Amino acid sequence: MGTIVLGVAGGTGSGKTTLTRTLKDRFGDKISVISHDNYYKRQDDLSYEERCKTNYDHPDAFDTDLMVEHLRDLKAGKPVLCPVYDFSQHNRSGELLQVQPAPVILVEGILIFASPELCDLMDIKVFVDTDADVRILRRIVRDVKKRGRTLDSVITQYLTTVKPMHEQFVEPSKRRADLIIPEGGKNAVAVEMLIHRLENHLNTEEG
Amino acid sequence: MGTIVLGVAGGTGSGKTTLTRTLKDRFGDKISVISHDNYYKRQDDLSYEERCKTNYDHPDAFDTDLMVEHLRDLKAGKPVLCPVYDFSQHNRSGELLQVQPAPVILVEGILIFASPELCDLMDIKVFVDTDADVRILRRIVRDVKKRGRTLDSVITQYLTTVKPMHEQFVEPSKRRADLIIPEGGKNAVAVEMLIHRLENHLNTEEG
Repeated sequence: MGTIVLGVAGGTGSGKTTLTRTLKDRFGDKISVISHDNYYKRQDDLSYEERCKTNYDHPDAFDTDLMVEHLRDLKAGKPVLCPVYDFSQHNRSGELLQVQPAPVILVEGILIFASPELCDLMDIKVFVDTDADVRILRRIVRDVKKRGRTLDSVITQYLTTVKPMHEQFVEPSKRRADLIIPEGGKNAVAVEMLIHRLENHLNTEEG
Repeated sequence: MGTIVLGVAGGTGSGKTTLTRTLKDRFGDKISVISHDNYYKRQDDLSYEERCKTNYDHPDAFDTDLMVEHLRDLKAGKPVLCPVYDFSQHNRSGELLQVQPAPVILVEGILIFASPELCDLMDIKVFVDTDADVRILRRIVRDVKKRGRTLDSVITQYLTTVKPMHEQFVEPSKRRADLIIPEGGKNAVAVEMLIHRLENHLNTEEG
């Protein structure tokens, strides 16, 4: 088939994005990325206040069926129109992002290993494992500085949904991983190993 | 230098040996293996009964300094004479095993990541992570069937030293790992990735 699907999971703030960016920078258009975050369900029937109360850390918050369909399309060499989520509005934006098929498809998200259908489509399942204290610090920096949330709201959301859902769904899904990478994108040895693996695949494809 | 040092650690029964054997079978004399187990300290001054009571799961049971010296020699391209341990006698045998330098040196053992000096000499540190219940079952099979121990003695040793030492030294040493491989040698995706990494190294060396 010529396509390798790499899944990158791990809790909030674990280092998935850094790892994804490092691989994307390295391989350019030979790698296409789809993020589970973009597949949060449409919530047009809810008010903004109601949407704020959605549990975004539960597998049911995602339209995973659509992501599975898109991943199958990409593996079959077809481009897909991926929805784009607007985090400030807590809803799907009208935007669509065209994602091209590529020799490497990287699927990333907190809960992707919680879906057996998604897992079945992946060739390599990597779980980025970082201590919870480091992860919450990164999340605070991201949500307060980049997403304009208050510290109190970040803490409340973390303790009421993020942490319990992590323990209920994310942590157990680590069992489905083929490889566990401590610290994610900052782990040079592990990143280099993944790069070698993908390079071998690309060379085989070209050769 | 042309030598890559791969460390393989993990608790008793985790799958280190299967992983080591798989890589050895694959790469033959391009890979040399040294096992921490062979560096258990000489106990000539103790009676057999006393030797039975040694805590073999504590870092102090090993002559790690000698292993560090041997690993440095191998990296410098010099063959070493590795001691051979006799598990039935709980003592070093008179035998010496000549280990040749090779492009890949695999160092394996339960407690190798507990030594910062050993860690500093490794390029890739892999921790094989397997559930404790699976590990004790494998250990029972190995010690009762292959090493002629009684079930009771295996259970007593496990509960009095193996388990507490695992929690005190082995589990915390996982933090030094670059990669964590669930289930070790039976994890085909992870094994394949390690093989690719080592092949790349060998091809670079030859090219």
